[in-house]
Amino acid sequence: MPDNSNIKALLFDVFGTVVDWRNGVARHVGLFLNRHSIPIEPFEFADAWRRHYAPSMEEIRSGQRPFVRLDTLHRENLVTVMADYGLDASSISPEELDELNHTWHRRDPWPDSIEGLLRLKRRFMIAPLSNGNIRLILDMAKRAALPWDAILGAEVVRAYKPSPQVYVDTVDILGLKPAEVCMVAAHNGDLAAARRCGLRTAFVLRSTEHGSSQKSDLRAEQNWDFTAADLNDLATQFGCPT
Amino acid sequence: MPDNSNIKALLFDVFGTVVDWRNGVARHVGLFLNRHSIPIEPFEFADAWRRHYAPSMEEIRSGQRPFVRLDTLHRENLVTVMADYGLDASSISPEELDELNHTWHRRDPWPDSIEGLLRLKRRFMIAPLSNGNIRLILDMAKRAALPWDAILGAEVVRAYKPSPQVYVDTVDILGLKPAEVCMVAAHNGDLAAARRCGLRTAFVLRSTEHGSSQKSDLRAEQNWDFTAADLNDLATQFGCPT
Repeated sequence: MPDNSNIKALLFDVFGTVVDWRNGVARHVGLFLNRHSIPIEPFEFADAWRRHYAPSMEEIRSGQRPFVRLDTLHRENLVTVMADYGLDASSISPEELDELNHTWHRRDPWPDSIEGLLRLKRRFMIAPLSNGNIRLILDMAKRAALPWDAILGAEVVRAYKPSPQVYVDTVDILGLKPAEVCMVAAHNGDLAAARRCGLRTAFVLRSTEHGSSQKSDLRAEQNWDFTAADLNDLATQFGCPT
Repeated sequence: MPDNSNIKALLFDVFGTVVDWRNGVARHVGLFLNRHSIPIEPFEFADAWRRHYAPSMEEIRSGQRPFVRLDTLHRENLVTVMADYGLDASSISPEELDELNHTWHRRDPWPDSIEGLLRLKRRFMIAPLSNGNIRLILDMAKRAALPWDAILGAEVVRAYKPSPQVYVDTVDILGLKPAEVCMVAAHNGDLAAARRCGLRTAFVLRSTEHGSSQKSDLRAEQNWDFTAADLNDLATQFGCPT
Protein backbone atom coordinates (compact mmCIF):
# COMPACT_ATOMS: atom_id res chain seq x y z
CA MET A 1 0.00 0.00 0.00
CA PRO A 2 1.36 3.48 -0.86
CA ASP A 3 2.57 5.60 2.03
CA ASN A 4 -0.13 8.04 3.12
CA SER A 5 1.44 9.39 6.29
CA ASN A 6 2.13 12.83 4.80
CA ILE A 7 -1.38 13.41 3.50
CA LYS A 8 -3.26 16.01 5.54
CA ALA A 9 -6.23 16.93 3.34
CA LEU A 10 -8.50 15.10 0.93
CA LEU A 11 -10.27 17.01 -1.84
CA PHE A 12 -13.30 15.39 -3.44
CA ASP A 13 -14.87 15.69 -6.80
CA VAL A 14 -18.60 15.74 -6.04
CA PHE A 15 -20.83 15.04 -9.07
CA GLY A 16 -20.36 11.35 -9.83
CA THR A 17 -17.78 10.75 -7.09
CA VAL A 18 -19.74 11.62 -3.92
CA VAL A 19 -23.27 11.97 -5.29
CA ASP A 20 -25.30 10.20 -7.97
CA TRP A 21 -26.50 13.10 -10.11
CA ARG A 22 -28.03 11.18 -13.02
CA ASN A 23 -30.88 9.25 -11.38
CA GLY A 24 -32.06 12.26 -9.39
CA VAL A 25 -31.83 14.76 -12.24
CA ALA A 26 -33.68 12.36 -14.56
CA ARG A 27 -36.42 11.85 -11.96
CA HIS A 28 -36.85 15.61 -11.59
CA VAL A 29 -36.70 16.16 -15.36
CA GLY A 30 -39.31 13.41 -15.77
CA LEU A 31 -41.79 15.28 -13.56
CA PHE A 32 -41.18 18.45 -15.55
CA LEU A 33 -41.60 16.76 -18.94
CA ASN A 34 -44.74 14.96 -17.79
CA ARG A 35 -46.25 18.19 -16.50
CA HIS A 36 -45.84 19.70 -19.95
CA SER A 37 -46.69 16.49 -21.86
CA ILE A 38 -43.31 16.55 -23.60
CA PRO A 39 -42.53 13.09 -24.99
CA ILE A 40 -38.78 12.91 -24.28
CA GLU A 41 -37.10 10.14 -22.31
CA PRO A 42 -35.96 11.76 -19.00
CA PHE A 43 -32.52 10.06 -18.85
CA GLU A 44 -31.85 11.13 -22.42
CA PHE A 45 -32.74 14.73 -21.52
CA ALA A 46 -30.62 14.61 -18.33
CA ASP A 47 -27.63 13.26 -20.27
CA ALA A 48 -28.06 15.90 -22.97
CA TRP A 49 -28.22 18.64 -20.32
CA ARG A 50 -25.07 17.30 -18.71
CA ARG A 51 -23.26 17.10 -22.08
CA HIS A 52 -23.40 20.90 -22.33
CA TYR A 53 -21.51 21.18 -19.02
CA ALA A 54 -17.95 20.77 -20.31
CA PRO A 55 -18.24 23.06 -23.37
CA SER A 56 -19.94 25.79 -21.31
CA MET A 57 -17.06 25.77 -18.80
CA GLU A 58 -14.54 25.69 -21.61
CA GLU A 59 -15.52 29.23 -22.62
CA ILE A 60 -14.43 30.34 -19.15
CA ARG A 61 -11.33 28.15 -18.95
CA SER A 62 -10.15 29.52 -22.29
CA GLY A 63 -10.62 33.11 -21.14
CA GLN A 64 -13.35 33.94 -23.67
CA ARG A 65 -15.74 34.67 -20.83
CA PRO A 66 -15.24 35.92 -17.26
CA PHE A 67 -15.99 33.49 -14.44
CA VAL A 68 -19.65 32.85 -13.72
CA ARG A 69 -20.87 30.26 -11.25
CA LEU A 70 -22.15 26.82 -12.26
CA ASP A 71 -25.77 27.66 -11.39
CA THR A 72 -25.64 30.22 -14.20
CA LEU A 73 -24.13 27.75 -16.69
CA HIS A 74 -26.66 25.04 -15.75
CA ARG A 75 -29.50 27.54 -16.25
CA GLU A 76 -28.21 28.65 -19.66
CA ASN A 77 -27.61 25.03 -20.67
CA LEU A 78 -31.18 24.13 -19.74
CA VAL A 79 -32.47 26.67 -22.25
CA THR A 80 -29.99 25.37 -24.84
CA VAL A 81 -30.90 21.72 -24.38
CA MET A 82 -34.59 22.57 -24.64
CA ALA A 83 -33.86 24.36 -27.91
CA ASP A 84 -31.92 21.28 -29.08
CA TYR A 85 -35.18 19.36 -28.64
CA GLY A 86 -37.20 22.06 -30.42
CA LEU A 87 -38.75 23.28 -27.16
CA ASP A 88 -39.25 26.97 -26.48
CA ALA A 89 -37.98 27.77 -22.97
CA SER A 90 -39.76 31.12 -23.04
CA SER A 91 -43.08 29.24 -22.94
CA ILE A 92 -42.19 28.06 -19.41
CA SER A 93 -42.17 30.47 -16.46
CA PRO A 94 -38.69 31.54 -15.28
CA GLU A 95 -39.63 30.35 -11.77
CA GLU A 96 -40.33 26.83 -13.04
CA LEU A 97 -37.04 26.74 -14.96
CA ASP A 98 -35.22 27.99 -11.83
CA GLU A 99 -36.87 25.27 -9.81
CA LEU A 100 -35.81 22.61 -12.32
CA ASN A 101 -32.28 24.06 -12.42
CA HIS A 102 -32.17 23.72 -8.65
CA THR A 103 -32.27 19.95 -9.09
CA TRP A 104 -28.45 19.99 -9.15
CA HIS A 105 -28.52 21.22 -5.52
CA ARG A 106 -30.47 18.22 -4.31
CA ARG A 107 -28.58 15.15 -5.42
CA ASP A 108 -28.24 12.14 -3.15
CA PRO A 109 -24.91 10.66 -2.01
CA TRP A 110 -23.94 7.18 -3.15
CA PRO A 111 -24.78 4.67 -0.37
CA ASP A 112 -21.17 4.56 0.94
CA SER A 113 -20.44 8.31 0.81
CA ILE A 114 -21.59 9.54 4.23
CA GLU A 115 -19.99 6.72 6.21
CA GLY A 116 -16.78 6.92 4.18
CA LEU A 117 -16.52 10.69 4.63
CA LEU A 118 -17.21 10.49 8.36
CA ARG A 119 -14.41 7.92 8.75
CA LEU A 120 -11.98 9.94 6.63
CA LYS A 121 -12.88 13.18 8.43
CA ARG A 122 -11.54 11.88 11.74
CA ARG A 123 -8.04 11.75 10.29
CA PHE A 124 -7.98 14.27 7.43
CA MET A 125 -9.33 17.66 6.51
CA ILE A 126 -12.03 16.89 3.94
CA ALA A 127 -13.45 19.35 1.43
CA PRO A 128 -15.19 19.22 -1.93
CA LEU A 129 -13.17 20.42 -4.90
CA SER A 130 -16.08 20.64 -7.28
CA ASN A 131 -16.97 22.87 -10.18
CA GLY A 132 -20.28 23.39 -8.38
CA ASN A 133 -20.70 26.80 -6.79
CA ILE A 134 -20.64 27.30 -3.02
CA ARG A 135 -24.41 27.57 -2.54
CA LEU A 136 -25.03 24.50 -4.69
CA ILE A 137 -22.57 22.39 -2.68
CA LEU A 138 -23.83 23.89 0.59
CA ASP A 139 -27.46 22.99 -0.19
CA MET A 140 -26.44 19.48 -1.17
CA ALA A 141 -24.37 19.02 1.98
CA LYS A 142 -27.05 20.39 4.29
CA ARG A 143 -29.77 18.24 2.77
CA ALA A 144 -27.73 15.03 2.83
CA ALA A 145 -25.53 15.72 5.92
CA LEU A 146 -22.28 15.58 3.97
CA PRO A 147 -19.77 16.44 6.72
CA TRP A 148 -17.36 18.78 4.89
CA ASP A 149 -14.80 20.73 6.92
CA ALA A 150 -15.05 23.59 4.40
CA ILE A 151 -16.47 24.18 0.94
CA LEU A 152 -13.67 24.73 -1.54
CA GLY A 153 -13.86 24.56 -5.32
CA ALA A 154 -14.33 26.53 -8.50
CA GLU A 155 -16.14 29.54 -7.05
CA VAL A 156 -13.56 30.09 -4.29
CA VAL A 157 -10.69 30.25 -6.79
CA ARG A 158 -12.82 31.59 -9.68
CA ALA A 159 -11.67 28.97 -12.18
CA TYR A 160 -12.94 25.61 -13.39
CA LYS A 161 -11.32 22.20 -13.20
CA PRO A 162 -9.22 20.88 -14.80
CA SER A 163 -7.41 24.26 -14.97
CA PRO A 164 -4.21 23.91 -12.90
CA GLN A 165 -5.09 27.13 -11.06
CA VAL A 166 -7.94 25.30 -9.29
CA TYR A 167 -5.65 22.70 -7.71
CA VAL A 168 -2.70 25.02 -7.08
CA ASP A 169 -4.73 27.83 -5.48
CA THR A 170 -6.73 25.39 -3.34
CA VAL A 171 -3.55 23.79 -1.99
CA ASP A 172 -2.31 27.30 -1.19
CA ILE A 173 -5.55 28.15 0.66
CA LEU A 174 -5.02 25.02 2.75
CA GLY A 175 -1.49 26.18 3.60
CA LEU A 176 -0.13 22.79 2.50
CA LYS A 177 2.33 21.38 -0.01
CA PRO A 178 0.77 19.66 -3.04
CA ALA A 179 2.02 16.24 -1.90
CA GLU A 180 0.15 16.72 1.40
CA VAL A 181 -3.17 16.88 -0.48
CA CYS A 182 -4.93 13.99 -2.21
CA MET A 183 -7.54 14.50 -4.94
CA VAL A 184 -10.30 11.90 -4.81
CA ALA A 185 -12.33 11.44 -7.99
CA ALA A 186 -14.17 8.94 -10.16
CA HIS A 187 -12.75 10.65 -13.24
CA ASN A 188 -9.29 9.92 -14.65
CA GLY A 189 -9.08 13.38 -16.24
CA ASP A 190 -9.57 15.18 -12.92
CA LEU A 191 -6.86 13.03 -11.31
CA ALA A 192 -4.45 13.57 -14.22
CA ALA A 193 -4.80 17.34 -13.84
CA ALA A 194 -4.30 17.11 -10.06
CA ARG A 195 -1.22 14.92 -10.50
CA ARG A 196 0.31 17.42 -12.91
CA CYS A 197 0.07 19.96 -10.06
CA GLY A 198 1.84 17.61 -7.65
CA LEU A 199 -1.17 16.37 -5.67
CA ARG A 200 -1.65 12.76 -4.61
CA THR A 201 -4.47 10.93 -6.36
CA ALA A 202 -7.20 8.44 -5.44
CA PHE A 203 -9.49 6.87 -8.03
CA VAL A 204 -12.93 5.74 -6.89
CA LEU A 205 -14.83 3.46 -9.24
CA ARG A 206 -18.35 4.69 -10.01
CA SER A 207 -19.28 2.32 -12.80
CA THR A 208 -22.92 3.44 -13.08
CA GLU A 209 -22.55 7.22 -12.89
CA HIS A 210 -23.64 7.40 -16.54
CA GLY A 211 -25.99 4.41 -16.30
CA SER A 212 -25.63 0.71 -16.94
CA SER A 213 -23.96 1.12 -20.32
CA GLN A 214 -21.24 3.48 -19.11
CA LYS A 215 -18.11 3.40 -21.26
CA SER A 216 -15.75 5.88 -19.54
CA ASP A 217 -13.84 5.81 -16.24
CA LEU A 218 -14.44 2.10 -15.70
CA ARG A 219 -10.84 1.64 -14.59
CA ALA A 220 -7.81 3.55 -13.33
CA GLU A 221 -6.04 4.73 -16.48
CA GLN A 222 -2.81 5.61 -14.67
CA ASN A 223 -1.16 4.15 -11.58
CA TRP A 224 -2.95 6.47 -9.21
CA ASP A 225 -1.68 6.48 -5.63
CA PHE A 226 -4.88 4.79 -4.48
CA THR A 227 -7.66 2.94 -6.28
CA ALA A 228 -10.81 2.23 -4.30
CA ALA A 229 -14.13 0.47 -4.86
CA ASP A 230 -15.95 3.25 -2.96
CA LEU A 231 -15.35 5.81 -0.20
CA ASN A 232 -15.64 3.22 2.56
CA ASP A 233 -12.95 1.16 0.87
CA LEU A 234 -10.80 4.30 0.60
CA ALA A 235 -11.24 4.93 4.34
CA THR A 236 -10.16 1.35 5.03
CA GLN A 237 -7.11 1.75 2.80
CA PHE A 238 -6.22 4.90 4.74
CA GLY A 239 -6.49 2.96 8.01
CA CYS A 240 -9.53 4.87 9.28
CA PRO A 241 -11.56 2.79 11.78
CA THR A 242 -15.21 2.08 11.06
CA MET B 1 -39.96 40.51 18.58
CA PRO B 2 -38.83 41.52 15.07
CA ASP B 3 -40.03 39.39 12.20
CA ASN B 4 -37.44 36.82 11.22
CA SER B 5 -39.44 34.71 8.78
CA ASN B 6 -37.52 35.93 5.73
CA ILE B 7 -34.06 35.23 7.12
CA LYS B 8 -32.40 32.25 5.45
CA ALA B 9 -28.74 32.55 6.44
CA LEU B 10 -26.84 33.73 9.49
CA LEU B 11 -23.27 35.01 9.15
CA PHE B 12 -21.10 35.10 12.26
CA ASP B 13 -18.20 37.18 13.28
CA VAL B 14 -15.84 34.67 14.92
CA PHE B 15 -13.11 36.27 17.09
CA GLY B 16 -14.90 37.59 20.14
CA THR B 17 -18.38 36.57 18.97
CA VAL B 18 -18.07 32.78 18.67
CA VAL B 19 -14.68 32.16 20.29
CA ASP B 20 -12.78 33.67 23.21
CA TRP B 21 -9.45 34.58 21.64
CA ARG B 22 -7.88 36.55 24.49
CA ASN B 23 -7.57 33.96 27.26
CA GLY B 24 -6.18 31.30 24.92
CA VAL B 25 -3.75 33.57 23.11
CA ALA B 26 -2.47 34.96 26.44
CA ARG B 27 -1.99 31.41 27.78
CA HIS B 28 -0.02 30.43 24.68
CA VAL B 29 1.96 33.69 24.72
CA GLY B 30 2.72 33.08 28.42
CA LEU B 31 4.35 29.72 27.65
CA PHE B 32 6.44 31.36 24.93
CA LEU B 33 7.53 34.29 27.13
CA ASN B 34 8.38 31.94 30.02
CA ARG B 35 10.44 29.69 27.77
CA HIS B 36 12.56 32.70 26.80
CA SER B 37 12.51 34.31 30.27
CA ILE B 38 10.93 37.45 28.87
CA PRO B 39 9.33 39.46 31.71
CA ILE B 40 6.20 40.71 29.94
CA GLU B 41 2.66 40.19 31.21
CA PRO B 42 1.03 37.72 28.74
CA PHE B 43 -2.37 39.49 28.53
CA GLU B 44 -0.60 42.76 27.84
CA PHE B 45 1.38 41.12 25.02
CA ALA B 46 -1.76 39.44 23.61
CA ASP B 47 -3.65 42.76 23.66
CA ALA B 48 -0.72 44.56 22.03
CA TRP B 49 -0.54 41.87 19.30
CA ARG B 50 -4.27 42.21 18.68
CA ARG B 51 -4.04 46.04 18.53
CA HIS B 52 -1.95 45.71 15.35
CA TYR B 53 -4.76 43.77 13.68
CA ALA B 54 -6.93 46.68 12.52
CA PRO B 55 -4.11 48.90 11.16
CA SER B 56 -2.53 45.97 9.29
CA MET B 57 -5.84 45.24 7.54
CA GLU B 58 -6.35 48.92 6.84
CA GLU B 59 -3.41 48.88 4.42
CA ILE B 60 -5.34 46.30 2.39
CA ARG B 61 -8.75 47.92 2.76
CA SER B 62 -7.32 51.21 1.54
CA GLY B 63 -5.77 49.57 -1.53
CA GLN B 64 -2.16 50.32 -0.52
CA ARG B 65 -1.44 46.60 -0.44
CA PRO B 66 -2.91 43.61 -2.33
CA PHE B 67 -4.93 41.10 -0.32
CA VAL B 68 -2.93 38.74 1.89
CA ARG B 69 -4.51 36.32 4.32
CA LEU B 70 -4.81 36.96 8.05
CA ASP B 71 -2.19 34.33 8.94
CA THR B 72 0.33 36.51 7.11
CA LEU B 73 -0.78 39.69 8.89
CA HIS B 74 -0.72 37.96 12.31
CA ARG B 75 2.81 36.69 11.61
CA GLU B 76 4.07 40.13 10.57
CA ASN B 77 2.34 41.73 13.55
CA LEU B 78 4.02 39.25 15.90
CA VAL B 79 7.43 40.47 14.73
CA THR B 80 6.24 44.08 15.07
CA VAL B 81 4.88 43.67 18.58
CA MET B 82 8.10 41.96 19.67
CA ALA B 83 10.03 44.94 18.29
CA ASP B 84 7.68 47.28 20.19
CA TYR B 85 8.87 45.52 23.37
CA GLY B 86 12.52 45.72 22.28
CA LEU B 87 12.65 42.01 21.45
CA ASP B 88 14.52 40.74 18.39
CA ALA B 89 12.30 38.24 16.54
CA SER B 90 15.28 37.02 14.52
CA SER B 91 16.70 35.51 17.73
CA ILE B 92 13.76 33.05 17.75
CA SER B 93 13.51 30.24 15.19
CA PRO B 94 10.95 30.81 12.42
CA GLU B 95 9.35 27.47 13.35
CA GLU B 96 8.74 28.65 16.92
CA LEU B 97 7.24 31.93 15.71
CA ASP B 98 5.04 29.99 13.26
CA GLU B 99 3.90 27.75 16.10
CA LEU B 100 3.05 30.77 18.26
CA ASN B 101 1.26 32.43 15.33
CA HIS B 102 -0.81 29.27 14.96
CA THR B 103 -2.39 30.04 18.35
CA TRP B 104 -5.09 31.98 16.49
CA HIS B 105 -6.22 28.68 14.88
CA ARG B 106 -6.87 27.03 18.22
CA ARG B 107 -9.21 29.28 20.14
CA ASP B 108 -12.03 27.85 22.21
CA PRO B 109 -15.71 28.69 21.70
CA TRP B 110 -17.60 30.55 24.41
CA PRO B 111 -19.57 28.04 26.52
CA ASP B 112 -22.86 28.71 24.69
CA SER B 113 -21.49 28.74 21.13
CA ILE B 114 -21.70 25.08 20.07
CA GLU B 115 -25.19 24.50 21.43
CA GLY B 116 -26.42 27.82 20.04
CA LEU B 117 -24.98 27.11 16.58
CA LEU B 118 -26.38 23.57 16.49
CA ARG B 119 -29.84 24.91 17.30
CA LEU B 120 -29.60 27.71 14.72
CA LYS B 121 -28.23 25.33 12.07
CA ARG B 122 -31.44 23.30 12.02
CA ARG B 123 -33.33 26.29 10.70
CA PHE B 124 -30.75 28.48 8.92
CA MET B 125 -27.65 28.21 6.80
CA ILE B 126 -24.84 29.18 9.18
CA ALA B 127 -21.40 30.35 8.14
CA PRO B 128 -18.58 32.40 9.61
CA LEU B 129 -18.00 35.82 8.07
CA SER B 130 -14.65 36.41 9.68
CA ASN B 131 -11.51 38.21 8.64
CA GLY B 132 -9.72 34.95 9.50
CA ASN B 133 -8.51 32.97 6.51
CA ILE B 134 -10.13 29.71 5.45
CA ARG B 135 -7.51 27.39 6.96
CA LEU B 136 -7.54 29.29 10.25
CA ILE B 137 -11.32 29.04 10.55
CA LEU B 138 -11.24 25.41 9.35
CA ASP B 139 -8.69 24.40 12.01
CA MET B 140 -10.68 26.16 14.70
CA ALA B 141 -13.92 24.53 13.59
CA LYS B 142 -12.42 21.04 13.34
CA ARG B 143 -10.77 21.25 16.76
CA ALA B 144 -13.86 22.59 18.53
CA ALA B 145 -16.59 20.96 16.38
CA LEU B 146 -18.08 24.25 15.24
CA PRO B 147 -20.81 23.02 12.86
CA TRP B 148 -20.53 25.53 9.98
CA ASP B 149 -22.39 24.80 6.73
CA ALA B 150 -19.58 26.50 4.78
CA ILE B 151 -16.60 28.72 5.52
CA LEU B 152 -17.14 32.16 4.07
CA GLY B 153 -15.28 35.35 4.91
CA ALA B 154 -12.42 37.63 3.95
CA GLU B 155 -10.33 35.12 1.99
CA VAL B 156 -13.26 33.96 -0.17
CA VAL B 157 -14.05 37.51 -1.29
CA ARG B 158 -10.46 38.79 -0.97
CA ALA B 159 -11.38 41.83 1.14
CA TYR B 160 -11.53 42.61 4.85
CA LYS B 161 -14.48 43.66 6.97
CA PRO B 162 -15.87 46.25 7.34
CA SER B 163 -15.44 46.88 3.58
CA PRO B 164 -18.92 46.73 2.02
CA GLN B 165 -17.58 44.33 -0.62
CA VAL B 166 -17.28 41.61 2.04
CA TYR B 167 -20.97 41.69 2.94
CA VAL B 168 -22.27 42.33 -0.58
CA ASP B 169 -20.19 39.62 -2.28
CA THR B 170 -20.99 37.08 0.45
CA VAL B 171 -24.73 37.67 0.08
CA ASP B 172 -24.26 37.17 -3.67
CA ILE B 173 -22.40 33.88 -3.14
CA LEU B 174 -25.33 32.70 -1.02
CA GLY B 175 -27.73 33.59 -3.85
CA LEU B 176 -29.86 35.60 -1.42
CA LYS B 177 -31.15 39.14 -0.99
CA PRO B 178 -29.37 41.20 1.73
CA ALA B 179 -32.52 41.24 3.88
CA GLU B 180 -32.52 37.41 3.86
CA VAL B 181 -29.14 37.37 5.62
CA CYS B 182 -28.44 38.32 9.24
CA MET B 183 -24.99 39.33 10.48
CA VAL B 184 -24.33 38.15 14.03
CA ALA B 185 -21.56 39.95 15.90
CA ALA B 186 -20.41 41.20 19.28
CA HIS B 187 -19.10 44.37 17.62
CA ASN B 188 -21.29 47.36 16.81
CA GLY B 189 -18.97 48.44 13.99
CA ASP B 190 -19.34 45.13 12.13
CA LEU B 191 -23.13 45.33 12.42
CA ALA B 192 -23.19 48.96 11.28
CA ALA B 193 -21.26 48.01 8.12
CA ALA B 194 -23.56 45.03 7.48
CA ARG B 195 -26.67 47.21 7.96
CA ARG B 196 -25.38 49.74 5.44
CA CYS B 197 -25.33 46.85 2.92
CA GLY B 198 -28.95 45.94 3.72
CA LEU B 199 -28.32 42.89 5.91
CA ARG B 200 -30.28 42.18 9.09
CA THR B 201 -28.28 42.49 12.31
CA ALA B 202 -27.98 40.63 15.62
CA PHE B 203 -25.85 41.94 18.49
CA VAL B 204 -24.47 39.38 20.92
CA LEU B 205 -23.08 40.74 24.18
CA ARG B 206 -19.55 39.51 24.93
CA SER B 207 -18.69 41.73 27.86
CA THR B 208 -15.37 40.06 28.71
CA GLU B 209 -13.88 39.62 25.24
CA HIS B 210 -11.24 42.19 26.18
CA GLY B 211 -11.10 41.22 29.85
CA SER B 212 -12.91 42.35 32.97
CA SER B 213 -12.27 46.05 32.35
CA GLN B 214 -13.67 46.06 28.80
CA LYS B 215 -14.93 49.47 27.71
CA SER B 216 -16.24 48.86 24.16
CA ASP B 217 -19.23 46.98 22.79
CA LEU B 218 -20.92 46.66 26.18
CA ARG B 219 -24.27 47.53 24.67
CA ALA B 220 -26.14 47.71 21.37
CA GLU B 221 -25.31 51.17 20.00
CA GLN B 222 -28.10 51.11 17.40
CA ASN B 223 -31.50 49.47 17.38
CA TRP B 224 -30.20 46.24 15.85
CA ASP B 225 -32.85 43.78 14.66
CA PHE B 226 -31.92 41.40 17.48
CA THR B 227 -29.94 41.80 20.71
CA ALA B 228 -28.97 38.63 22.53
CA ALA B 229 -27.17 37.67 25.73
CA ASP B 230 -25.41 34.81 23.92
CA LEU B 231 -25.91 32.41 20.98
CA ASN B 232 -28.30 30.20 22.92
CA ASP B 233 -30.44 33.24 23.67
CA LEU B 234 -30.33 34.15 19.97
CA ALA B 235 -31.50 30.64 19.05
CA THR B 236 -34.36 31.00 21.51
CA GLN B 237 -35.32 34.39 20.04
CA PHE B 238 -35.35 32.77 16.59
CA GLY B 239 -37.68 30.07 17.89
CA CYS B 240 -35.14 27.24 17.49
CA PRO B 241 -35.92 24.34 19.85
CA THR B 242 -33.27 23.22 22.38
